Amino acid sequence: MGVMRLGRVEARVLDLEKSIDYYSNVIGLQLVAREPGKAYFKAWDEEDHHSLIITEADYPGLEHMGFKVRYQEDLDTFEKAIEQYGIRVNRVSNRHRIGEGEAIRFTLPTGQVMELYHEIERIGNGLKLNPDPKPENLKGIAPPYLDHLLIAGEDVPATTDLLMKVMDFHMSERVILHGDELFAVWLFRTNTPHDIAIIKGPNGKLHHFAFGLSSWEDVLHAADCLAKNEVVLDEGPTRHGITRGLTIYFFDPSGNRNEVFSGGYIPGEDFTPVTWTEERLPRGIFYHKGEITERFTGVFT
Amino acid sequence: MGVMRLGRVEARVLDLEKSIDYYSNVIGLQLVAREPGKAYFKAWDEEDHHSLIITEADYPGLEHMGFKVRYQEDLDTFEKAIEQYGIRVNRVSNRHRIGEGEAIRFTLPTGQVMELYHEIERIGNGLKLNPDPKPENLKGIAPPYLDHLLIAGEDVPATTDLLMKVMDFHMSERVILHGDELFAVWLFRTNTPHDIAIIKGPNGKLHHFAFGLSSWEDVLHAADCLAKNEVVLDEGPTRHGITRGLTIYFFDPSGNRNEVFSGGYIPGEDFTPVTWTEERLPRGIFYHKGEITERFTGVFT
Amino acid sequence: MGVMRLGRVEARVLDLEKSIDYYSNVIGLQLVAREPGKAYFKAWDEEDHHSLIITEADYPGLEHMGFKVRYQEDLDTFEKAIEQYGIRVNRVSNRHRIGEGEAIRFTLPTGQVMELYHEIERIGNGLKLNPDPKPENLKGIAPPYLDHLLIAGEDVPATTDLLMKVMDFHMSERVILHGDELFAVWLFRTNTPHDIAIIKGPNGKLHHFAFGLSSWEDVLHAADCLAKNEVVLDEGPTRHGITRGLTIYFFDPSGNRNEVFSGGYIPGEDFTPVTWTEERLPRGIFYHKGEITERFTGVFT
Amino acid sequence: MGVMRLGRVEARVLDLEKSIDYYSNVIGLQLVAREPGKAYFKAWDEEDHHSLIITEADYPGLEHMGFKVRYQEDLDTFEKAIEQYGIRVNRVSNRHRIGEGEAIRFTLPTGQVMELYHEIERIGNGLKLNPDPKPENLKGIAPPYLDHLLIAGEDVPATTDLLMKVMDFHMSERVILHGDELFAVWLFRTNTPHDIAIIKGPNGKLHHFAFGLSSWEDVLHAADCLAKNEVVLDEGPTRHGITRGLTIYFFDPSGNRNEVFSGGYIPGEDFTPVTWTEERLPRGIFYHKGEITERFTGVFT
Repeated sequence: MGVMRLGRVEARVLDLEKSIDYYSNVIGLQLVAREPGKAYFKAWDEEDHHSLIITEADYPGLEHMGFKVRYQEDLDTFEKAIEQYGIRVNRVSNRHRIGEGEAIRFTLPTGQVMELYHEIERIGNGLKLNPDPKPENLKGIAPPYLDHLLIAGEDVPATTDLLMKVMDFHMSERVILHGDELFAVWLFRTNTPHDIAIIKGPNGKLHHFAFGLSSWEDVLHAADCLAKNEVVLDEGPTRHGITRGLTIYFFDPSGNRNEVFSGGYIPGEDFTPVTWTEERLPRGIFYHKGEITERFTGVFT
Repeated sequence: MGVMRLGRVEARVLDLEKSIDYYSNVIGLQLVAREPGKAYFKAWDEEDHHSLIITEADYPGLEHMGFKVRYQEDLDTFEKAIEQYGIRVNRVSNRHRIGEGEAIRFTLPTGQVMELYHEIERIGNGLKLNPDPKPENLKGIAPPYLDHLLIAGEDVPATTDLLMKVMDFHMSERVILHGDELFAVWLFRTNTPHDIAIIKGPNGKLHHFAFGLSSWEDVLHAADCLAKNEVVLDEGPTRHGITRGLTIYFFDPSGNRNEVFSGGYIPGEDFTPVTWTEERLPRGIFYHKGEITERFTGVFT
Repeated sequence: MGVMRLGRVEARVLDLEKSIDYYSNVIGLQLVAREPGKAYFKAWDEEDHHSLIITEADYPGLEHMGFKVRYQEDLDTFEKAIEQYGIRVNRVSNRHRIGEGEAIRFTLPTGQVMELYHEIERIGNGLKLNPDPKPENLKGIAPPYLDHLLIAGEDVPATTDLLMKVMDFHMSERVILHGDELFAVWLFRTNTPHDIAIIKGPNGKLHHFAFGLSSWEDVLHAADCLAKNEVVLDEGPTRHGITRGLTIYFFDPSGNRNEVFSGGYIPGEDFTPVTWTEERLPRGIFYHKGEITERFTGVFT
Repeated sequence: MGVMRLGRVEARVLDLEKSIDYYSNVIGLQLVAREPGKAYFKAWDEEDHHSLIITEADYPGLEHMGFKVRYQEDLDTFEKAIEQYGIRVNRVSNRHRIGEGEAIRFTLPTGQVMELYHEIERIGNGLKLNPDPKPENLKGIAPPYLDHLLIAGEDVPATTDLLMKVMDFHMSERVILHGDELFAVWLFRTNTPHDIAIIKGPNGKLHHFAFGLSSWEDVLHAADCLAKNEVVLDEGPTRHGITRGLTIYFFDPSGNRNEVFSGGYIPGEDFTPVTWTEERLPRGIFYHKGEITERFTGVFT
């Protein structure tokens, strides 16, 4: 049993049509379904029905994040465990959103809504019988998968504790300030440097969600696509010290920060976390420049 | 609980000194310990004491492969489960080899010796406090980690069944010949396309073991290193259709086939296996040429 | 004054429609003009009307190669110089082929027909005012330019002498066999490792013509395109020792060998040629494998 | 006859020992000679004795730049032509600096000192007989060659006119402001996007000099080296719109701006220049961000 991965992000957007155009043509996701006020997307290498939902709203941000669990029965187990931990859990009914089965839903100590689910329609990636390595006719950045998200909150240790103790997340990296303050943490369930990260900041807020890429060359291609489409860049292309990943940060038309992320290491459950302290935190964030901008640390949605 | 990953390969070599030179200076592993007739190596990004043991012998091949499990108690659980499955299990005592704790040991239906273990000394990768992304003074190909191995045997389904049923391995890809013969299979525990693969062939034999690389550019660097050192190349640089990975095959001084492997996808436990059939199998093996050589299919150690 | 670069190759093909499909959709050139029995192509970053002409014929091979000179007056100068050298020169009249101005035409000592020309219509690359780095909607391999060709002949020194003495080509590399036999030579006018190369072989024959790519990553993309389209690969992806270039060889539908080539160095007129001898010639040709196949040395068109 | 390429840059530095350490160990040039107050370096793939001289002084900047001409006799021809153009020319005697032969010396309309020379000692790159593609034991960024420099001045058209009319430089790109002001220009003699560029700014000043790299992957390696050595980054890794090149700007210990540059196109003498205007100039400079910082436009040495 257990949490498999970050399965979906639901982001609030200001203008649905503009956002559909952006996520379809610039990011290059497949638009798989629409309903009034909502659009559903998957990345080309994903098999599930969708990994991104955008929902029209008056302000941007994270509507919910969903982690997929291995078995349907895991919902009961996690429901009990999370309630026992002291957090109230609700059930989200089957087909509450397009393509989705039942889920459990609760609010993290840092204020974001998380869902756990197992059932979701399968669309597939079309690459299951004698396949070529890529589908034809990809557009834009065309990331193969949704990778991770970074959320903010006042009590980083609280959400970290819940995720590690109850959901068996493992820690890959952490920032310790003033000797003992857990300022930020990177957690994983897959053998990637992070499926979710949490940073000290305003409760309930989103810093960014990230799409996975395969190489530094793909990061360049992404940067070229962003430039061609005049997307506002935040930082990059560059390398993170934390996770060693290769990255670009930029903003969707509603101001939600997106990232493309490539690389890093392949941690196991026995991975010894990496620790960062004040004097090297800027290199941890942006390894090459060793400087953090106000926009990067100040803008959340 | 569970199997985490391929933790170690013990390969037989004909000439220990020559092999130490090769694995140290061409592959670029760190020599961490020696004893009469044996040498122990780790790759730079691994934390455990070793991932490769070479053992002097009159003929090359695989002495054993070891998979690391998450908890020490998993040894008891797996011991029972494997015996119940009908395979005899032995205990390997603590410090049987340098740096290693207790293990359980058994023979796969295809004839190879497998060990499961949890305890092993930790050396670390030296990158745990405010690290740079790489250590200094790497030599040769310098892969960050041991990635997977491919073994041969007459009864591919039997070993596959054991690994999937008892050890919860998942299938990423398979070759089906003549409509229903499981000719080869790729299995994973980590979110990588394979930790072990099994192909129809002579029992007890090794086809290759592989080191992980980070990019196609690193594959080129590896090919340049191999050429400079006049290592015998088998195939590559090229891409596999199966796993989509980027690859070079070559031979160690004893004739054991090595691979460097990069890329592929990030499968979860819900991954739908990819199936290959006769007409595309050559592209599955070597995507670019679409041809398989006799050496590649005929040489095992 | 002087020769600027390899401006065009005219190749004979067996089936015009099939070849148009191949050069348009697999190689990814732009079809710029057609006339009965002929088609004209340019690569996306070239400004001249065409760099490849394919001409239907009963057997494949090189119809002519054309080098562009800096000034129209250079035609007179070269005409005189080549005739003085002892080779008969003809004039090709204006608009003999689509888009082309006048040319001078002569046969190399190794039997191939060469033209020198200055005038050719300009189509441009569409990237001259505030451009993005690439045009949209590229297909297939999409090389930015024609790079070089390799011709065969019995008297390599004779053609070499003509090109160097009369047309001021410079030598980047050469193969010397049996102590003093000039077996092959690489010559340049641009600051690239070669615009033309000559190898000992059957007179009048073509070994290959090559399109330029920008990176090892583009070479992988090309290999993936070739595989997807089931093009017959000859060798690669790999590196040449000679020129250090990154390469794939493959065959067009008529059996003409094509290459994609990337990298190498930037030689000046003062470059000291590199010399290769027997014992390392295989590594010179294919650096990684250090082996040459019969097909590579035996097939000319 | 003619100018071949940018052969050397002599830069003023504040602290010779610190600068020797930087250019040797971070940039990774070979220190080939020293004399009081001066050190001489070559990049690994260059054959001439040196391409960079650093000279201790109280303030940083460009002491002179030297372009290598094809023949010794070209000195006389250019001497006459430049004097006829109205600029005074001096002779620099043989062995005025280590390894160098005679040169002619004059001041550009924008105030920088330029030398033309043919004779210089040859050290070679050690890769002339059956070579591997790279030497062993490279350190730091290890660029293969010096690529270009960018100088500032009040009268950009004046220096451009001299270089194009008298020295047959060709224009690859230009910035036109206010409809007809030639604000910046990129000029080449080699088939690379630039050997020298000139931008409106303070007379006699240097904006940067650049080392050539072979790929975007090498640019990442360079960025990692700079970070590890805590070199102050100015911009990058990113792409230029102008030249399409891949780039990082950073500062040597004296505040001279350095660049590593890779890619771009291969222009011939018939290349149609690219024009940039106000509205896209920021994307011309830094294609991805589309923003220019004050430091980039304001700091000259």
